[in-house]
Amino acid sequence: MTEQITLDNLDDFATGATVLGTGGGGDPYIGTLMARQAIKKHGPVELLDPEDIPADELVVPSAMLGAPTVMVEKLPRGSESTDAFEALETYMGQEAYATMSIEAGGLNSTVPIAVAAELEIPLVDADGMGRAFPEVQMVTMTMGGISATPMSIADEKGNSVFLETQDNQWAEQFARTTSIEMGGSCMIATYAHTGAELREHAILNSMSLAREIGETIRTAKTDSADPVEELLKLTDGFELFEGKILDVERRTEGGFAVGEATIDGMQSYEGRSLQLDFQNENLVARDSERGVVASVPDLITVLDAETGDPITTEGLQYGHRVRVVGMPCAEQWRTDAGLDLVGPRYFDYDIDYKPIENLQS
Amino acid sequence: MTEQITLDNLDDFATGATVLGTGGGGDPYIGTLMARQAIKKHGPVELLDPEDIPADELVVPSAMLGAPTVMVEKLPRGSESTDAFEALETYMGQEAYATMSIEAGGLNSTVPIAVAAELEIPLVDADGMGRAFPEVQMVTMTMGGISATPMSIADEKGNSVFLETQDNQWAEQFARTTSIEMGGSCMIATYAHTGAELREHAILNSMSLAREIGETIRTAKTDSADPVEELLKLTDGFELFEGKILDVERRTEGGFAVGEATIDGMQSYEGRSLQLDFQNENLVARDSERGVVASVPDLITVLDAETGDPITTEGLQYGHRVRVVGMPCAEQWRTDAGLDLVGPRYFDYDIDYKPIENLQS
Repeated sequence: MTEQITLDNLDDFATGATVLGTGGGGDPYIGTLMARQAIKKHGPVELLDPEDIPADELVVPSAMLGAPTVMVEKLPRGSESTDAFEALETYMGQEAYATMSIEAGGLNSTVPIAVAAELEIPLVDADGMGRAFPEVQMVTMTMGGISATPMSIADEKGNSVFLETQDNQWAEQFARTTSIEMGGSCMIATYAHTGAELREHAILNSMSLAREIGETIRTAKTDSADPVEELLKLTDGFELFEGKILDVERRTEGGFAVGEATIDGMQSYEGRSLQLDFQNENLVARDSERGVVASVPDLITVLDAETGDPITTEGLQYGHRVRVVGMPCAEQWRTDAGLDLVGPRYFDYDIDYKPIENLQS
Repeated sequence: MTEQITLDNLDDFATGATVLGTGGGGDPYIGTLMARQAIKKHGPVELLDPEDIPADELVVPSAMLGAPTVMVEKLPRGSESTDAFEALETYMGQEAYATMSIEAGGLNSTVPIAVAAELEIPLVDADGMGRAFPEVQMVTMTMGGISATPMSIADEKGNSVFLETQDNQWAEQFARTTSIEMGGSCMIATYAHTGAELREHAILNSMSLAREIGETIRTAKTDSADPVEELLKLTDGFELFEGKILDVERRTEGGFAVGEATIDGMQSYEGRSLQLDFQNENLVARDSERGVVASVPDLITVLDAETGDPITTEGLQYGHRVRVVGMPCAEQWRTDAGLDLVGPRYFDYDIDYKPIENLQS
């Protein structure tokens, strides 16, 4: 049976993707709003099994690029995501068979749902990270030699930019300055690739995992179960900390939302604190007693202590009682090539990556 | 008879364009080198009379964008100017009938000669400024409602960027950041327009004027005539100053070469000094006794006191004995719309534009 994204399960997708978004990937609110409007108008979106894409057909991921902090305040006009998408199709002279999320994240999993609904094409049950990362080249497709360009970029003022770059790191560089020039955020269509390439290089079935996570958290609430416990079972994750947010330092740097949060321990974490560093996404969690308890590319997510709802980095607020969880990343990221792209050293941390399951005492 | 650009008269074009370049438009050396190589390989370039372009045919100007200071040190790979040009043709789905200089200037009048030779198409005897200006939107075509985009931008590393913007000011903004990202300079193809539009909105016959200026300075030297006097006769210009360069302040700011030169008076200017402000091009000349003696959009050019050879802003050096001349700009720039685009107030000077002929005592 073909799975569908409907007005009924859209929130589950958004919640689950925000959990996988590990603090980044944008606030789900605006993306969900856009997807809801589009589904209301055009009907449900087909969630396409990666096995069902013809080998030669084109999949074009669509996404928001920029500091999510900005995106919350700078509302999209509505058409710039389809503008960017259709401009890329025109440029390539080939229609896309489907769209896809470049990353799992509140906004960047729901924006492609809106695009799919508007253009009446399917959304592939896959993404390029299995989580969210801050930079364009940080997708498993980069390791598979797939180019981020031609990339099409559009803003709400009607400007558009196309890139053809020598490698995906240059694509990141040009796209980032363009997003800053466009006011801090923009919509992009990028990493066009075939069905065959997708099956080989993307992270498969991550959208249905997101829906399952969202459903788990939602039903746990109504069943009076512990949503965090249920989430950890589903994702092979670990509880890292529980406490109250004591302090959040936040700044926009080079187009990114960068900062640190300090969480004051409660319950079994009483007397300790956790420092959480982020660049759009949570990067490293340091326990005042135990040292590093999780780092990129493993997932670190902050949840509301009561409801289990995920909190993005821009939602972190003083006094909020939270639980912090860690989840193992996709196996592709644990290779040497994967760690070169997204390991702690790429983000200027002088630490070796240790898989989260080895860091638990 | 069709006029041609050959190995014999190329230097005249370059010298004359550098005079019109009013300090900017790039050093002629690299552009002349590129044009010389291309003419050697492909033969002379036809200098096309604007009247001879079919009304519907496409003219695509090509240019270097960035701080000329950088361009002197960052050698082009050679193919990026034709890369940018051909990418724009592909994007527009129409071949260009001819290319053209976007501005008169040492580099930006010779780069299109190289492109014309390489692609074996004519160069139109026209440009968009009748001089050089620092920003993309500062062409007479902007007043004619012609769009700078689609614009194609290429660098020596093989990266390329296309822009489609809401107006020419946005094109400037995106192109400028891209040029910075590309290392400070890049090649562009922009302002595609038809033969009919060219005749209505461009500045006509400026390339043959450049050749005439170059020829005048060259022959004055061999005839032991005063090259500066001859130049002023040809261009209805005025001598503004003569002296030795005392000081040059120079910095790269936002992708521009910005600075001031102070010239210590000699001969009839003894006891006075001239301050020359520039942003890629010379903007305002202030005599210590007489105040402003010339300002944008009129042309201010520094010449070697002996040879009459033009000196670009990046060539200004301590101790150099120079003569400074001023020449009236094209009539289009003296309209309200023209002064809005390129008058002194646009460059943050709190002065009203006065035509250079009214500033002479």
